Amino acid sequence: MVYKHIIAAIDLSEDSAYLVNKAAKLAQSLGAKLSLVHIDVDYADLYTGLIDINLAEMHERAENDAQTRLHELANNAGYPVAHTLVGSGDLSEEICSTIKDLNVDLVICGHHQDFWSKILSSTRQLISRTPVDLLIVPLK
Amino acid sequence: MVYKHIIAAIDLSEDSAYLVNKAAKLAQSLGAKLSLVHIDVDYADLYTGLIDINLAEMHERAENDAQTRLHELANNAGYPVAHTLVGSGDLSEEICSTIKDLNVDLVICGHHQDFWSKILSSTRQLISRTPVDLLIVPLK
Repeated sequence: MVYKHIIAAIDLSEDSAYLVNKAAKLAQSLGAKLSLVHIDVDYADLYTGLIDINLAEMHERAENDAQTRLHELANNAGYPVAHTLVGSGDLSEEICSTIKDLNVDLVICGHHQDFWSKILSSTRQLISRTPVDLLIVPLK
Repeated sequence: MVYKHIIAAIDLSEDSAYLVNKAAKLAQSLGAKLSLVHIDVDYADLYTGLIDINLAEMHERAENDAQTRLHELANNAGYPVAHTLVGSGDLSEEICSTIKDLNVDLVICGHHQDFWSKILSSTRQLISRTPVDLLIVPLK
């Protein structure tokens, strides 16, 4: 078996459904498990000055929202999704720890041409850090 | 069908057999065609001063050598290889034109940690230029 557990890194942009669909087709062809992960920005990193008391609440709300949207994507994938995970913090770090926790052997991520530099930098980090194969899907 | 024609970009290092093997397994699982490509350095770019008369001969010899080694890899792949191609020049440019010529829909390439910066730069070029999916396999 080429890959046993595929994880798709989802940024919840409008192209996410396309990426999930591609990941689902690949997982189905290979008989692999499929999971979805979304890594949110770390809100604590955005506020270096006084921290608002509502930060925790805001973070929780964003996390719930992300979880809801991930579940929607999972339900429309046309293939059973084993785990939907929402984390926050450094993308490559979080994905590497997920890889270890869930015995993932393939990471799928998209890249947009429009906010290129940001994605390139996440992708570059992933390329240099991920211990497993990485499938990069170009998005419009 | 997720992918119809997979091409593996081979640098003819000692890890090439591992990469070919992985590409062959994936192609087999997906019922896709498999091709191998090696992009040689462009010798003309290395000599900016006086150009030796034997440059053409040297280039031809290197190309024949690369073709022989690609054929060996193809024969040991355990899966039929449709095309073995040797080119020279800019990696991402050559691969993009191969993608178009052969209707490739997935490119597989390895990356070494040891001569990282060089590969990162080829990979970065590939990420930003390839119109199709790119599978990056970490090598030791």
